[in-house]
Amino acid sequence: MNHAVPKITVGTEWVIDAIGCAPLALMSEEVLRRLFEDVVRELDLTPAAPALWKVFPGEAGITGLWMLQESHLTVHTFPEHAAAAINLYCCAERRAWAWEAELIRRLGATAVSVRVLARGGRAPERAG
Amino acid sequence: MNHAVPKITVGTEWVIDAIGCAPLALMSEEVLRRLFEDVVRELDLTPAAPALWKVFPGEAGITGLWMLQESHLTVHTFPEHAAAAINLYCCAERRAWAWEAELIRRLGATAVSVRVLARGGRAPERAG
Repeated sequence: MNHAVPKITVGTEWVIDAIGCAPLALMSEEVLRRLFEDVVRELDLTPAAPALWKVFPGEAGITGLWMLQESHLTVHTFPEHAAAAINLYCCAERRAWAWEAELIRRLGATAVSVRVLARGGRAPERAG
Repeated sequence: MNHAVPKITVGTEWVIDAIGCAPLALMSEEVLRRLFEDVVRELDLTPAAPALWKVFPGEAGITGLWMLQESHLTVHTFPEHAAAAINLYCCAERRAWAWEAELIRRLGATAVSVRVLARGGRAPERAG
């Protein structure tokens, strides 16, 4: 019986894709660092280590990874495609952030997609 | 016309949830480090920095983040829920890894869910 199978919940992941962005914003470590800091502060998240940043040469974009007590925040930018890909995984409950409005304002995005994934699964019964 | 709107593709993300795992495996940094190393070697990925690991106290699990030239690999384990949550984001094309078989073997998972997400989006036409 399906309703007897327990649901294992280990948090929520927001998978955010912004396109049509301004390439200069996508090549600015400062813009992306400020984005990270604002997300973490406004959602009351706690860094578990310093954020890790890498600026790839030319138009190859920037990567940021931040380990949080509540899981992680990542960004990859692709200036040649005018695109940014962000993940926020929270194993503790948090409200949604205003990704669409913020990425339009900060990155000049023309479209922002936000997918919300429940992490975990439905535990099958063990034999025995 | 929909077919005139270009598709922006910035890679593929595998979102993997393993449940029913052996708590001891989820508390073993060695087991998780080996998993990371094998994924990276077998998919011919290139680390862009050393992997970052954090072992949380008691049964609070382990987090690993690895920045790759091809984006990132992350893991969070939840021994109290017998669950592990893994993300592999590849902005370059790669074959699928055998997540289900490997996590059954390495973590004792009883069920593994793999969601495959295309990153990027469909670019709206800009005005002007």
